[in-house]
Amino acid sequence: MTAQLLTRIDHVGIAVRDLDASIELYETTFGLTVASRETNEGQGVREAMLHVAGPPGEASYVQLLEPLAADTPVGKFLAGRGEGVHHIGYGVVDVAAALAQLEADGVRLVDERPRHGSLGASIAFLHPKSVGGVLTELVQTAAR
Amino acid sequence: MTAQLLTRIDHVGIAVRDLDASIELYETTFGLTVASRETNEGQGVREAMLHVAGPPGEASYVQLLEPLAADTPVGKFLAGRGEGVHHIGYGVVDVAAALAQLEADGVRLVDERPRHGSLGASIAFLHPKSVGGVLTELVQTAAR
Repeated sequence: MTAQLLTRIDHVGIAVRDLDASIELYETTFGLTVASRETNEGQGVREAMLHVAGPPGEASYVQLLEPLAADTPVGKFLAGRGEGVHHIGYGVVDVAAALAQLEADGVRLVDERPRHGSLGASIAFLHPKSVGGVLTELVQTAAR
Repeated sequence: MTAQLLTRIDHVGIAVRDLDASIELYETTFGLTVASRETNEGQGVREAMLHVAGPPGEASYVQLLEPLAADTPVGKFLAGRGEGVHHIGYGVVDVAAALAQLEADGVRLVDERPRHGSLGASIAFLHPKSVGGVLTELVQTAAR
Protein backbone atom coordinates (compact mmCIF):
# COMPACT_ATOMS: atom_id res chain seq x y z
CA MET A 1 0.00 0.00 0.00
CA THR A 2 1.55 3.26 -1.17
CA ALA A 3 0.80 6.39 0.87
CA GLN A 4 -1.07 8.94 -1.23
CA LEU A 5 1.59 11.20 -2.72
CA LEU A 6 -0.69 13.54 -4.69
CA THR A 7 -2.91 15.66 -2.44
CA ARG A 8 -4.95 17.55 -5.03
CA ILE A 9 -5.07 18.74 -8.63
CA ASP A 10 -3.18 22.01 -8.24
CA HIS A 11 -3.48 23.24 -11.81
CA VAL A 12 -4.00 22.47 -15.46
CA GLY A 13 -1.16 24.04 -17.46
CA ILE A 14 -2.34 25.22 -20.88
CA ALA A 15 -0.08 26.41 -23.71
CA VAL A 16 -1.46 29.54 -25.39
CA ARG A 17 -0.29 31.84 -28.19
CA ASP A 18 -1.68 35.07 -26.72
CA LEU A 19 -1.81 35.29 -22.93
CA ASP A 20 -4.08 38.36 -22.77
CA ALA A 21 -6.61 36.89 -25.19
CA SER A 22 -6.63 33.60 -23.29
CA ILE A 23 -7.14 35.33 -19.94
CA GLU A 24 -10.05 37.21 -21.49
CA LEU A 25 -11.55 33.92 -22.67
CA TYR A 26 -11.43 32.28 -19.24
CA GLU A 27 -12.68 35.45 -17.55
CA THR A 28 -15.61 36.19 -19.82
CA THR A 29 -16.66 32.66 -20.77
CA PHE A 30 -16.19 30.92 -17.43
CA GLY A 31 -16.04 33.75 -14.89
CA LEU A 32 -12.61 32.84 -13.53
CA THR A 33 -10.40 35.55 -11.99
CA VAL A 34 -6.67 36.14 -12.27
CA ALA A 35 -4.84 35.27 -9.04
CA SER A 36 -1.35 36.11 -10.33
CA ARG A 37 0.62 37.06 -13.40
CA GLU A 38 4.34 36.52 -13.64
CA THR A 39 7.23 35.89 -15.99
CA ASN A 40 9.29 32.77 -15.33
CA GLU A 41 12.58 33.12 -17.25
CA GLY A 42 13.71 29.65 -16.13
CA GLN A 43 10.72 28.05 -17.80
CA GLY A 44 10.62 30.56 -20.66
CA VAL A 45 7.04 31.68 -20.13
CA ARG A 46 4.80 34.58 -19.35
CA GLU A 47 1.93 33.14 -17.38
CA ALA A 48 -1.23 33.72 -15.42
CA MET A 49 -2.90 31.64 -12.72
CA LEU A 50 -6.72 31.82 -12.80
CA HIS A 51 -8.37 30.71 -9.58
CA VAL A 52 -10.92 27.90 -9.87
CA ALA A 53 -11.55 26.75 -6.29
CA GLY A 54 -10.15 26.46 -2.79
CA PRO A 55 -8.30 28.63 -0.30
CA PRO A 56 -4.64 29.68 -0.72
CA GLY A 57 -2.33 26.73 -0.19
CA GLU A 58 -5.03 24.26 -1.25
CA ALA A 59 -6.40 26.02 -4.31
CA SER A 60 -6.71 24.80 -7.88
CA TYR A 61 -6.03 26.93 -10.93
CA VAL A 62 -6.04 27.13 -14.68
CA GLN A 63 -2.47 28.13 -15.60
CA LEU A 64 -2.09 29.87 -18.96
CA LEU A 65 1.42 29.74 -20.46
CA GLU A 66 2.67 31.93 -23.31
CA PRO A 67 6.22 31.19 -24.47
CA LEU A 68 8.86 33.91 -24.29
CA ALA A 69 10.48 32.53 -27.46
CA ALA A 70 9.98 29.82 -30.07
CA ASP A 71 12.88 27.70 -28.76
CA THR A 72 11.41 27.27 -25.26
CA PRO A 73 9.60 24.07 -24.17
CA VAL A 74 6.18 25.72 -24.47
CA GLY A 75 7.17 27.37 -27.77
CA LYS A 76 8.13 23.99 -29.20
CA PHE A 77 4.93 22.42 -27.85
CA LEU A 78 2.85 25.09 -29.64
CA ALA A 79 4.75 24.60 -32.87
CA GLY A 80 4.24 20.85 -32.75
CA ARG A 81 0.73 20.43 -31.39
CA GLY A 82 -0.89 23.85 -31.22
CA GLU A 83 -2.68 25.31 -28.22
CA GLY A 84 -3.87 22.85 -25.58
CA VAL A 85 -3.07 21.13 -22.30
CA HIS A 86 0.70 21.20 -21.74
CA HIS A 87 0.96 19.58 -18.29
CA ILE A 88 -0.91 18.72 -15.08
CA GLY A 89 0.26 19.99 -11.69
CA TYR A 90 -0.57 18.02 -8.53
CA GLY A 91 -0.14 19.12 -4.94
CA VAL A 92 2.38 17.30 -2.74
CA VAL A 93 3.26 17.93 0.91
CA ASP A 94 7.03 17.86 0.37
CA VAL A 95 8.37 18.06 -3.18
CA ALA A 96 11.96 17.09 -2.29
CA ALA A 97 10.78 13.99 -0.41
CA ALA A 98 8.41 13.12 -3.25
CA LEU A 99 11.26 13.36 -5.80
CA ALA A 100 13.47 11.09 -3.68
CA GLN A 101 10.70 8.50 -3.37
CA LEU A 102 9.83 8.60 -7.08
CA GLU A 103 13.46 8.38 -8.17
CA ALA A 104 13.89 5.34 -5.90
CA ASP A 105 10.80 3.85 -7.58
CA GLY A 106 12.47 4.26 -10.97
CA VAL A 107 10.37 7.17 -12.20
CA ARG A 108 12.22 9.33 -14.74
CA LEU A 109 12.55 12.91 -13.51
CA VAL A 110 12.87 16.13 -15.51
CA ASP A 111 14.01 18.02 -12.41
CA GLU A 112 16.25 16.27 -9.89
CA ARG A 113 15.81 19.16 -7.47
CA PRO A 114 12.86 21.48 -6.79
CA ARG A 115 12.81 24.81 -8.57
CA HIS A 116 10.75 27.98 -8.49
CA GLY A 117 7.15 27.76 -9.70
CA SER A 118 4.08 29.98 -9.78
CA LEU A 119 2.88 31.80 -6.64
CA GLY A 120 6.15 31.07 -4.84
CA ALA A 121 5.71 27.30 -4.93
CA SER A 122 8.51 24.74 -5.07
CA ILE A 123 7.92 22.56 -8.09
CA ALA A 124 9.46 19.72 -10.09
CA PHE A 125 8.49 17.99 -13.31
CA LEU A 126 8.34 14.24 -13.94
CA HIS A 127 9.05 12.93 -17.43
CA PRO A 128 5.95 12.05 -19.46
CA LYS A 129 7.55 8.74 -20.48
CA SER A 130 7.15 7.58 -16.88
CA VAL A 131 3.59 8.90 -16.48
CA GLY A 132 1.69 7.57 -19.49
CA GLY A 133 2.45 10.48 -21.81
CA VAL A 134 1.43 13.16 -19.29
CA LEU A 135 3.99 15.83 -18.38
CA THR A 136 3.40 15.84 -14.62
CA GLU A 137 4.38 18.58 -12.18
CA LEU A 138 4.61 18.27 -8.40
CA VAL A 139 3.70 21.45 -6.49
CA GLN A 140 4.53 22.25 -2.87
CA THR A 141 2.76 25.52 -2.16
CA ALA A 142 4.54 28.44 -0.49
CA ALA A 143 2.01 28.34 2.36
CA ARG A 144 3.44 25.14 3.81
CA MET B 1 -18.62 40.65 -14.41
CA THR B 2 -19.46 37.06 -15.25
CA ALA B 3 -20.58 34.81 -12.39
CA GLN B 4 -18.12 31.97 -11.88
CA LEU B 5 -19.41 29.08 -13.96
CA LEU B 6 -16.69 26.53 -13.14
CA THR B 7 -16.74 25.47 -9.48
CA ARG B 8 -13.73 23.13 -9.40
CA ILE B 9 -11.44 20.93 -11.45
CA ASP B 10 -13.49 17.73 -11.43
CA HIS B 11 -11.08 15.53 -13.34
CA VAL B 12 -8.24 15.21 -15.79
CA GLY B 13 -9.25 12.78 -18.55
CA ILE B 14 -6.27 10.79 -19.82
CA ALA B 15 -6.27 8.54 -22.90
CA VAL B 16 -4.49 5.24 -22.23
CA ARG B 17 -3.82 2.09 -24.24
CA ASP B 18 -4.11 -0.37 -21.34
CA LEU B 19 -6.51 0.55 -18.54
CA ASP B 20 -5.26 -2.02 -16.04
CA ALA B 21 -1.60 -1.08 -16.52
CA SER B 22 -2.44 2.62 -16.18
CA ILE B 23 -4.46 2.06 -12.99
CA GLU B 24 -1.47 0.14 -11.61
CA LEU B 25 0.81 3.09 -12.45
CA TYR B 26 -1.34 5.65 -10.63
CA GLU B 27 -1.87 3.30 -7.68
CA THR B 28 1.72 2.26 -7.14
CA THR B 29 3.53 5.45 -8.19
CA PHE B 30 1.21 8.04 -6.69
CA GLY B 31 -0.88 6.11 -4.16
CA LEU B 32 -4.23 6.99 -5.72
CA THR B 33 -7.19 4.62 -5.26
CA VAL B 34 -9.89 3.54 -7.70
CA ALA B 35 -13.27 5.14 -6.90
CA SER B 36 -15.14 3.54 -9.81
CA ARG B 37 -14.74 1.48 -12.95
CA GLU B 38 -17.31 1.50 -15.70
CA THR B 39 -17.86 1.04 -19.40
CA ASN B 40 -19.49 3.95 -21.23
CA GLU B 41 -20.74 2.65 -24.58
CA GLY B 42 -21.93 6.14 -25.59
CA GLN B 43 -18.41 7.49 -25.29
CA GLY B 44 -16.76 4.29 -26.47
CA VAL B 45 -14.54 3.80 -23.44
CA ARG B 46 -13.69 1.55 -20.55
CA GLU B 47 -12.67 3.85 -17.75
CA ALA B 48 -11.64 4.26 -14.15
CA MET B 49 -11.90 7.23 -11.81
CA LEU B 50 -9.01 7.49 -9.33
CA HIS B 51 -9.73 9.70 -6.37
CA VAL B 52 -7.29 12.57 -5.74
CA ALA B 53 -9.03 14.80 -3.18
CA GLY B 54 -12.33 15.98 -1.74
CA PRO B 55 -15.60 14.45 -0.56
CA PRO B 56 -18.18 12.91 -2.94
CA GLY B 57 -19.92 15.62 -4.96
CA GLU B 58 -16.90 17.93 -4.68
CA ALA B 59 -14.09 15.50 -5.38
CA SER B 60 -11.41 15.60 -8.03
CA TYR B 61 -10.16 12.60 -9.96
CA VAL B 62 -7.75 11.26 -12.51
CA GLN B 63 -9.94 9.64 -15.16
CA LEU B 64 -8.24 6.93 -17.24
CA LEU B 65 -9.87 6.19 -20.59
CA GLU B 66 -9.21 3.12 -22.73
CA PRO B 67 -11.05 3.06 -26.06
CA LEU B 68 -13.46 0.21 -26.83
CA ALA B 69 -12.45 0.36 -30.51
CA ALA B 70 -10.07 2.21 -32.83
CA ASP B 71 -12.86 4.26 -34.45
CA THR B 72 -13.98 5.90 -31.19
CA PRO B 73 -12.97 9.47 -30.22
CA VAL B 74 -10.39 8.22 -27.71
CA GLY B 75 -9.18 5.55 -30.14
CA LYS B 76 -8.58 8.21 -32.80
CA PHE B 77 -6.88 10.47 -30.26
CA LEU B 78 -4.46 7.66 -29.33
CA ALA B 79 -3.71 6.91 -32.98
CA GLY B 80 -2.99 10.57 -33.71
CA ARG B 81 -1.20 11.78 -30.59
CA GLY B 82 -0.47 8.79 -28.38
CA GLU B 83 -1.25 8.53 -24.70
CA GLY B 84 -1.80 11.78 -22.82
CA VAL B 85 -4.33 14.31 -21.57
CA HIS B 86 -7.54 13.97 -23.59
CA HIS B 87 -9.79 16.52 -21.85
CA ILE B 88 -10.37 18.51 -18.67
CA GLY B 89 -13.60 18.20 -16.67
CA TYR B 90 -14.80 21.12 -14.53
CA GLY B 91 -17.61 21.10 -11.98
CA VAL B 92 -20.71 23.20 -12.63
CA VAL B 93 -23.82 23.60 -10.48
CA ASP B 94 -26.29 23.06 -13.33
CA VAL B 95 -25.01 21.66 -16.59
CA ALA B 96 -28.16 22.42 -18.62
CA ALA B 97 -28.15 26.06 -17.49
CA ALA B 98 -24.41 26.30 -18.19
CA LEU B 99 -24.91 24.98 -21.73
CA ALA B 100 -27.69 27.50 -22.37
CA GLN B 101 -25.51 30.37 -21.15
CA LEU B 102 -22.47 29.26 -23.13
CA GLU B 103 -24.45 28.71 -26.32
CA ALA B 104 -25.91 32.22 -25.94
CA ASP B 105 -22.32 33.47 -25.55
CA GLY B 106 -21.41 31.88 -28.89
CA VAL B 107 -19.36 28.99 -27.49
CA ARG B 108 -19.34 25.98 -29.81
CA LEU B 109 -20.80 22.92 -28.08
CA VAL B 110 -20.12 19.24 -28.72
CA ASP B 111 -23.21 18.25 -26.72
CA GLU B 112 -26.32 20.40 -26.95
CA ARG B 113 -27.91 18.44 -24.11
CA PRO B 114 -26.40 16.82 -21.02
CA ARG B 115 -25.58 13.14 -21.20
CA HIS B 116 -24.48 10.39 -18.87
CA GLY B 117 -20.96 10.64 -17.43
CA SER B 118 -18.86 8.88 -14.80
CA LEU B 119 -20.23 8.24 -11.30
CA GLY B 120 -23.78 9.09 -12.39
CA ALA B 121 -22.93 12.68 -13.31
CA SER B 122 -24.66 14.75 -16.00
CA ILE B 123 -21.99 15.97 -18.38
CA ALA B 124 -21.51 17.88 -21.63
CA PHE B 125 -18.48 18.65 -23.78
CA LEU B 126 -17.53 22.02 -25.24
CA HIS B 127 -15.64 22.14 -28.53
CA PRO B 128 -11.88 22.71 -28.20
CA LYS B 129 -12.04 25.34 -30.96
CA SER B 130 -13.95 27.58 -28.54
CA VAL B 131 -11.69 26.85 -25.55
CA GLY B 132 -8.14 27.42 -26.80
CA GLY B 133 -7.56 23.88 -28.02
CA VAL B 134 -8.75 22.23 -24.80
CA LEU B 135 -11.56 19.69 -25.03
CA THR B 136 -13.57 20.87 -22.02
CA GLU B 137 -16.21 18.90 -20.12
CA LEU B 138 -18.80 20.31 -17.73
CA VAL B 139 -19.74 17.99 -14.86
CA GLN B 140 -22.82 18.23 -12.64
CA THR B 141 -22.34 15.56 -9.99
CA ALA B 142 -25.08 13.08 -9.12
CA ALA B 143 -25.01 14.28 -5.50
CA ARG B 144 -26.73 17.53 -6.40
